[in-house]
Amino acid sequence: MQMALDEARRAAMAGEVPVAAVVTDASGAVLAVAANQVEERQDPTAHAEFLALSAARAARGQKYLADCTLTVTLEPCAFCAAAVAALRVGRLVFGAYDPKTGAVEHGPRLFAHATTHHKPEVIGGMREQECAALLKEFFGAKRDA
Amino acid sequence: MQMALDEARRAAMAGEVPVAAVVTDASGAVLAVAANQVEERQDPTAHAEFLALSAARAARGQKYLADCTLTVTLEPCAFCAAAVAALRVGRLVFGAYDPKTGAVEHGPRLFAHATTHHKPEVIGGMREQECAALLKEFFGAKRDA
Repeated sequence: MQMALDEARRAAMAGEVPVAAVVTDASGAVLAVAANQVEERQDPTAHAEFLALSAARAARGQKYLADCTLTVTLEPCAFCAAAVAALRVGRLVFGAYDPKTGAVEHGPRLFAHATTHHKPEVIGGMREQECAALLKEFFGAKRDA
Repeated sequence: MQMALDEARRAAMAGEVPVAAVVTDASGAVLAVAANQVEERQDPTAHAEFLALSAARAARGQKYLADCTLTVTLEPCAFCAAAVAALRVGRLVFGAYDPKTGAVEHGPRLFAHATTHHKPEVIGGMREQECAALLKEFFGAKRDA
């Protein structure tokens, strides 16, 4: 999570909503790190989680990431949670909860449905306050600008 | 839908699950066509809808596809439905219903949640039997092989 927090801070300095994600394998080795790049790419689907998962999958050269952990500073949205399911990611660790757009513990609660064919182990709230503070600062500074 | 059906048939011949999608603008001009490429790319997120939407967004060079229609042969899964919401696609037209993995009329019913910030106009069941028959034939042939 420290690596994700550092990457999210860099994203904030680049004007991106500060969310970042890291994919690690069973040994803890880092396969991919990515921050949100929605502004840079002008792509609303360029979320940290999806970019990190895509990079990890490509690096592996195989379809699934069953032995991997996705660690992200914010509760994933439906798009990223669905990518976690599609790629059969073994474990999802996230920092801040997101009642507005989160889709793991909120809204569509993607892993709560029988038709979601893969459900990762989920650990929410890791270093929650630091992860949430980063977002609060970013949006606070935007409002004051 | 005819264009999507033709593209889906080509995908079947390439060994892909025959699902295809077309993005058109308000004038009916085709911005992108894509079939499922999960096997070719060894990527479980390389769904027709997401590939077509990404291509249309890139061709446009702007974030949103508000004036566009996504036409697809199968009810989108959660990943693709979430992409429709993220890219603010104006209208979604799909062919066959998908009780197993569909996320529009089934499972997480993505557009039924207050936290899904954009909901397209949805028209389901267009040329449903042809779209469903294509999938049935494909999986039937696989079972007999």
